[in-house]
Amino acid sequence: MSDTPQAPTDKTRLRRYNWLAKYDRDTINAIIDAGIVCQIGYVIDGAPYVTPTCHWRIGDHVYWHGSSASRMLKAQQKGIKVCFTVTHLDGVVFSRASFNHNIQYRSVIAFGEAELVDEDTKREVLSTFTDRLAPGLWDYARVPADQEWKASKVIRMRLDEVSAKVADGLPEEDDADLATDRWAGHVPLRLVQGAPVADPKLRAGIEMPDFVKNFRY
Amino acid sequence: MSDTPQAPTDKTRLRRYNWLAKYDRDTINAIIDAGIVCQIGYVIDGAPYVTPTCHWRIGDHVYWHGSSASRMLKAQQKGIKVCFTVTHLDGVVFSRASFNHNIQYRSVIAFGEAELVDEDTKREVLSTFTDRLAPGLWDYARVPADQEWKASKVIRMRLDEVSAKVADGLPEEDDADLATDRWAGHVPLRLVQGAPVADPKLRAGIEMPDFVKNFRY
Repeated sequence: MSDTPQAPTDKTRLRRYNWLAKYDRDTINAIIDAGIVCQIGYVIDGAPYVTPTCHWRIGDHVYWHGSSASRMLKAQQKGIKVCFTVTHLDGVVFSRASFNHNIQYRSVIAFGEAELVDEDTKREVLSTFTDRLAPGLWDYARVPADQEWKASKVIRMRLDEVSAKVADGLPEEDDADLATDRWAGHVPLRLVQGAPVADPKLRAGIEMPDFVKNFRY
Repeated sequence: MSDTPQAPTDKTRLRRYNWLAKYDRDTINAIIDAGIVCQIGYVIDGAPYVTPTCHWRIGDHVYWHGSSASRMLKAQQKGIKVCFTVTHLDGVVFSRASFNHNIQYRSVIAFGEAELVDEDTKREVLSTFTDRLAPGLWDYARVPADQEWKASKVIRMRLDEVSAKVADGLPEEDDADLATDRWAGHVPLRLVQGAPVADPKLRAGIEMPDFVKNFRY
């Protein structure tokens, strides 16, 4: 993986608010890795579809998985164009001028082609996904049976045409607005986790494993 | 607006995990209204695009806005097909079998056509958006100048072909898995707000307005 910033393309170059754009891989990867749900855009019969699904990144590829029977995966395994996005909502901005109200967020958008991964790679990257979510989870849970492996497919796309937007500040307001008696600022938002909740069907005496105790979103 | 559940179409009928599907408008509207950021899918020159943006709902329509110069709005004002989605991540599910790990979430997907709203409607629905976000905000902030109104456009789509998915439980695990000594359960996730942060440029002596003090995401 290259450490040099990605050169923006016609699709990924931000034209408006271009000061929010980030093209360096560290920023892009951090935004992707901070989320476990992405939105995948694709086209079937000329119509747009967007599907939220779990994702994970290994090097220069992002991966997602699903049922072998899913309409999305059946379409994507043909190598169609996809648009991968991850968005984190970080706050709401109240401004002195209505035009300047906004949100704070981090987002990544990537354009590429879907690629069905082969059977060996599928098994390897699904275990990587599981263990990154919670280290030790792969060895702890019952490994998939043959029919479960058959029921799952993994799609990946290469992060070639990709950019990020980081809106973490406040808008530049006009001097005339700054001079008024109006309040401005923001309310931060953050996804937080609650205490783990055991399955009501859990048999008595089963301890919560460390990977759950230590889980941090 | 009809109170009867939306009949699923070929696009919105859930085939897999169909017990998660909800077609009643109360559930659909609650999921849409609980979020302020949606993902809009659309097609330009045969390629899929997904853009995160703020949304709001009035009756049977969802609305979003943007710069008159934006590529997205320029494409959408022609009435192209769009796919509107809202997703809330509510938890991570750890299962006894790897195949059953999952997430808890609420999502809505709607298919329709983008429609540019006229000038009068634009002004009306933007004030509705602002005041729903924080009651009183519209009257508090400086109203848009002519050039600011010109710089903004509003797109809407009718919620005709729409469905929701609510995954708030745990998977049904096999009896053989239930009989093992493995822990299962979930870790809840929730978007929470922090204390409001004033703009560092705020002039001394300006009070935080009630709509900020009372803001609840």
